[in-house]
Amino acid sequence: MTKIAIYPGSFDPITRGHEDIVRRCFAFSDRVIVAVAINSSKTPLFTLDERVELVREVLDGVENVRVDLFDGLLADYARRVGAHMLVRGLRAVSDFEYEFEMALMNRDLNSDLETVFLTPAVHHTFLRSSLVREVASLGGDVSRFVHPKVESAMRRKMNL
Amino acid sequence: MTKIAIYPGSFDPITRGHEDIVRRCFAFSDRVIVAVAINSSKTPLFTLDERVELVREVLDGVENVRVDLFDGLLADYARRVGAHMLVRGLRAVSDFEYEFEMALMNRDLNSDLETVFLTPAVHHTFLRSSLVREVASLGGDVSRFVHPKVESAMRRKMNL
Amino acid sequence: MTKIAIYPGSFDPITRGHEDIVRRCFAFSDRVIVAVAINSSKTPLFTLDERVELVREVLDGVENVRVDLFDGLLADYARRVGAHMLVRGLRAVSDFEYEFEMALMNRDLNSDLETVFLTPAVHHTFLRSSLVREVASLGGDVSRFVHPKVESAMRRKMNL
Amino acid sequence: MTKIAIYPGSFDPITRGHEDIVRRCFAFSDRVIVAVAINSSKTPLFTLDERVELVREVLDGVENVRVDLFDGLLADYARRVGAHMLVRGLRAVSDFEYEFEMALMNRDLNSDLETVFLTPAVHHTFLRSSLVREVASLGGDVSRFVHPKVESAMRRKMNL
Amino acid sequence: MTKIAIYPGSFDPITRGHEDIVRRCFAFSDRVIVAVAINSSKTPLFTLDERVELVREVLDGVENVRVDLFDGLLADYARRVGAHMLVRGLRAVSDFEYEFEMALMNRDLNSDLETVFLTPAVHHTFLRSSLVREVASLGGDVSRFVHPKVESAMRRKMNL
Amino acid sequence: MTKIAIYPGSFDPITRGHEDIVRRCFAFSDRVIVAVAINSSKTPLFTLDERVELVREVLDGVENVRVDLFDGLLADYARRVGAHMLVRGLRAVSDFEYEFEMALMNRDLNSDLETVFLTPAVHHTFLRSSLVREVASLGGDVSRFVHPKVESAMRRKMNL
Repeated sequence: MTKIAIYPGSFDPITRGHEDIVRRCFAFSDRVIVAVAINSSKTPLFTLDERVELVREVLDGVENVRVDLFDGLLADYARRVGAHMLVRGLRAVSDFEYEFEMALMNRDLNSDLETVFLTPAVHHTFLRSSLVREVASLGGDVSRFVHPKVESAMRRKMNL
Repeated sequence: MTKIAIYPGSFDPITRGHEDIVRRCFAFSDRVIVAVAINSSKTPLFTLDERVELVREVLDGVENVRVDLFDGLLADYARRVGAHMLVRGLRAVSDFEYEFEMALMNRDLNSDLETVFLTPAVHHTFLRSSLVREVASLGGDVSRFVHPKVESAMRRKMNL
Repeated sequence: MTKIAIYPGSFDPITRGHEDIVRRCFAFSDRVIVAVAINSSKTPLFTLDERVELVREVLDGVENVRVDLFDGLLADYARRVGAHMLVRGLRAVSDFEYEFEMALMNRDLNSDLETVFLTPAVHHTFLRSSLVREVASLGGDVSRFVHPKVESAMRRKMNL
Repeated sequence: MTKIAIYPGSFDPITRGHEDIVRRCFAFSDRVIVAVAINSSKTPLFTLDERVELVREVLDGVENVRVDLFDGLLADYARRVGAHMLVRGLRAVSDFEYEFEMALMNRDLNSDLETVFLTPAVHHTFLRSSLVREVASLGGDVSRFVHPKVESAMRRKMNL
Repeated sequence: MTKIAIYPGSFDPITRGHEDIVRRCFAFSDRVIVAVAINSSKTPLFTLDERVELVREVLDGVENVRVDLFDGLLADYARRVGAHMLVRGLRAVSDFEYEFEMALMNRDLNSDLETVFLTPAVHHTFLRSSLVREVASLGGDVSRFVHPKVESAMRRKMNL
Repeated sequence: MTKIAIYPGSFDPITRGHEDIVRRCFAFSDRVIVAVAINSSKTPLFTLDERVELVREVLDGVENVRVDLFDGLLADYARRVGAHMLVRGLRAVSDFEYEFEMALMNRDLNSDLETVFLTPAVHHTFLRSSLVREVASLGGDVSRFVHPKVESAMRRKMNL
């Protein structure tokens, strides 16, 4: 059976940490769907289309990856695309608690869906999209944290 | 490529929580190797042979599972058996920190080895082999926590 | 002396987890006051009156429970109603830290008020009102998480 | 119904933090049983009899407190003495996780037993019997951490 | 070389906990710059000028302290003022995780900048500006948590 | 006034993480005393003399560092050597809680002693002496974790 993993998130924007997690997924899955969330509670920096487009550009050339967007319950989306794995990166204890709760809820809503946690590369442990946005907005150099195409897009967006 | 997952531990003894994790592995792996650690720092209740035998009996009938024992570095063992995944159950924050550290160390020792964390069924979150041993040794009923064969073995071992 | 416990919260809406905690209070109190907070910083799904009414309906038939609403400092409210206990459910480490801080502050403001923490039933550890609201708003089934009357009220409110 | 609380522990020796928790119990219980554990895995500084005797001396004059010793499962002991509450002090996140696990296990073993967590006075948050023993053994002044009778007993025991 | 420490924050308003940390800085620094952040994401109670003025009044008489305001990246501000230390108070695990992440990011942005964490006096562990604001807004007495001048300013601001 | 920092520990053996912390101390101190603990509860791999000697060899050439050994209370030792700072590296939440407790206790025992926490370089976050010993004992390569002289000493000690 083809092993399909969903890697969901806001990807506002995709960071080097996200890229790293996507590549790690192939240790246990045949195909990875990067699923960009439509219904985000927060005001994003990039529009949905821009976030999807940046993920596509950054992951261009990585085989067996599909970029998609989803609305509604992740547990239902997984059923629709035939995936049995949700992949989440765990960077810190605070991540863990929230993710643990979500994993239990998602299992309750879809018992065929297993949440799989990965640890990022150690030098990515302090990378969060929101922190990267904040550093960039204050004029800091984010070239080590995101792909050059994402960096350019952030500059344009922020008129830097 | 066949996806092989190693699920390492002391299994002193195997609990319902361990069984649960083994079954969940098949969401993302084709074969699971339950790897019982030879070099345990603590004094075990069961001998290595007994621990291996109990795991075998409990998982009898689950397909694509192999029970093995290992010595030395887990990172080296994974290389020898051709596995690219280590599976660990995460029950609590304190687990998480230790496991996170070990995952980073194991990746440093074997960059082809990805540690994958799973959450147990919610009613197993308070199950730990050491706690089960303690409850049994004080005369408590552990039939909800371990397989009947394990329960019998514990009784015999503890002369209860 | 009659032991009176206050169980404060937003109850937006009351979940099966809240019900569980209320019932557990009788292990150590003679009367329980479920105190719905008027001054909530967040925009609630249900109005104050609706939240109070739902708590009343759900706890209908449980003896020695009174549903009330309160404004201002909880430490002062406790003094007014003659209660010496605040009851809080603890589900996770992140709850714990916030609650610990609040318990110390409340004790500072009212030295006769003891905060008492309880653990919910294990299958309720991932229940939070906000998560239940989110799942319902995305069309998920929340019938295992709330009382049927609450479920109906959520459907009406969300036009589902 | 008389509300009976059990406050279990090793009490090796009883600290000012323990005394504080005992007094707080009367916010919600009519009688408190301080239950000194017989089966301690670690090598204690004081013998069981000495630990019980020190608790008695320190709590002398506090009404409705009984000092007892117990063996076997706490869940069974509670049943025997007719108590429905276990009281535990929570000082830190690491306490919380262990205690949470034990609370779930104890409820599983005795569904009529509710674990109730209290926060110590803020200036006791760093008090642990083992740390007090260590400081005393290195010649430090522990008079702020334990009752004068305990301090004397520690001096005699350690030949200081 | 003169050791200069930056103690950054919103100081909305400065609490007894902040004062305590400033004084502790002199264990390892010759001069302390209290740096009030201009770019705060949240809506503050006090304006920037008011926050700076209150810090000045409260720390009046403490030698070798300068109060400043900063905009942009803290890592750049430190470079401009010639400081090699950022000081942060750690009260709880949740503080720790966020601060740890920020410390790693700040080091990445300015490798000459070392983040130094201090523990507040134990009776300040539950003090947070936001909690103090909340208590005051609900009519609670905050005189133990802030300097009298801050208390007066809060009363005026809140029309209490 | 000369700023003296004590960096205490078992150093069994000194790792690259310890070296990193020592160098970071000079952001805020003029002299650093690396204080190797005599009274260690655990059975060390290296004798006290060997541990001290390895620290000396590894830090040879770093100016203003003195290697010492201490017995008894750290709070008293600091007083004797005229130091006002204890330096500790914080890698994880579990470190934090223990260290926080010790910092409060040490301040209680010596109010002139400030505990200062530093974060290690991100690629050292998973380094612990005990883990390095374990990896070496199982035949793993620890050359990235310790100085070549320490690596040789470990080999000789373990007959590898």
